[in-house]
Amino acid sequence: MGRGAGKRVGVVLSGCGYLDGSEIQEATVTLLALDREGAKVRAAAPDVEQMHVVDHRLAQPTQEKRNILVEAARIVRGQIVPLDELHACDLDALVVPGGYGVAKNLCSFAVDGPRLQVHPEVERVVREMHAARKPQGFICIAPMIAAKVLGSHHPRLTIGNDPQTATTVRELGGEHVECPVDEIVVDEVNLLLSTPAYMLGPTIAPVAAGIERLIARLLVMA
Amino acid sequence: MGRGAGKRVGVVLSGCGYLDGSEIQEATVTLLALDREGAKVRAAAPDVEQMHVVDHRLAQPTQEKRNILVEAARIVRGQIVPLDELHACDLDALVVPGGYGVAKNLCSFAVDGPRLQVHPEVERVVREMHAARKPQGFICIAPMIAAKVLGSHHPRLTIGNDPQTATTVRELGGEHVECPVDEIVVDEVNLLLSTPAYMLGPTIAPVAAGIERLIARLLVMA
Repeated sequence: MGRGAGKRVGVVLSGCGYLDGSEIQEATVTLLALDREGAKVRAAAPDVEQMHVVDHRLAQPTQEKRNILVEAARIVRGQIVPLDELHACDLDALVVPGGYGVAKNLCSFAVDGPRLQVHPEVERVVREMHAARKPQGFICIAPMIAAKVLGSHHPRLTIGNDPQTATTVRELGGEHVECPVDEIVVDEVNLLLSTPAYMLGPTIAPVAAGIERLIARLLVMA
Repeated sequence: MGRGAGKRVGVVLSGCGYLDGSEIQEATVTLLALDREGAKVRAAAPDVEQMHVVDHRLAQPTQEKRNILVEAARIVRGQIVPLDELHACDLDALVVPGGYGVAKNLCSFAVDGPRLQVHPEVERVVREMHAARKPQGFICIAPMIAAKVLGSHHPRLTIGNDPQTATTVRELGGEHVECPVDEIVVDEVNLLLSTPAYMLGPTIAPVAAGIERLIARLLVMA
């Protein structure tokens, strides 16, 4: 038990597997850090079909169809609700792990780049949390969602050091801060935290160091 | 870096998701502990169809067909080889995380109970490691494989405290030792380590404590 004792933290997932869903290692390390701090996880995902399915051995799309919520349930052993059941009033904090699923299923960044659209339920919960002055953590590519939804509030965020992605964050109204993989960027005004995770990598241990730091700070702010 | 610096550890996966493949949290915590100790992971899985596919939200089988190796690749970001390419001569240690995939895909315990058969490539690599006097870690239900393959060597193992499963371990020639989730059982003669993980649970933090202890000891023995 620790800083998170009894705090309720929403975790928004986007599938199961980094090429078409949530980055499994980032999501699992998030769950581990939250459980170690005594927080109560409420996982959620959109109950709709994934953009596509990718064979993770060959890194090639397949013809299969899978549902985001059903696949995300694999990571959390079935303990998950449809995203439209996740509300800021029931939460003390929110976390969005990364993976291409964020850029393919939670928003359209992978396809539309700077003209991305955010899934309406994702946009709703991020806006609700911001309006309620509750902290939110965005991992890997997920800060792009905060940049798009909260751009008018000029959020301070990191996606690591990729120049093109950082430029998009700025075009959406955000301030991009370069950050190493085991560190976090904190926006004290908007109560946003971010860490680069597998935007930088290269392996799970440094990725986990950044995520653990993010969760520790998130729970202090919650 | 630590006890594992440069040591080569095989990780045998059985799919992706606890109801039809590897338990994702156990597998990821294993990868994290190995990376933190500086070990080099060589992940592998059988390149054949899963026994079946289970919807993890409803806990119900579906009509889909999925390949064990292709699904397991999700957990390790594509860095995986077919199990027939994994050989004891290339490894310093081996780990088998749990999940029903172990009892459905790596052996037939879920269907056949005490009359289980072990996948021939799983049996081969476990026998090779044992003959080469290299340590092996078995997590959750995976000790059942060690009990079946190495039963004539009377392996000392834990699957937690489930009486029926413990009875099967004994019927196969093993000695079953009750063990709490955050602890391990060590067989110094056969160089086998085991921890109950989600055979006991209840959540990822205590499961991770047991797995971290197992990996630390495995790398000392390697």
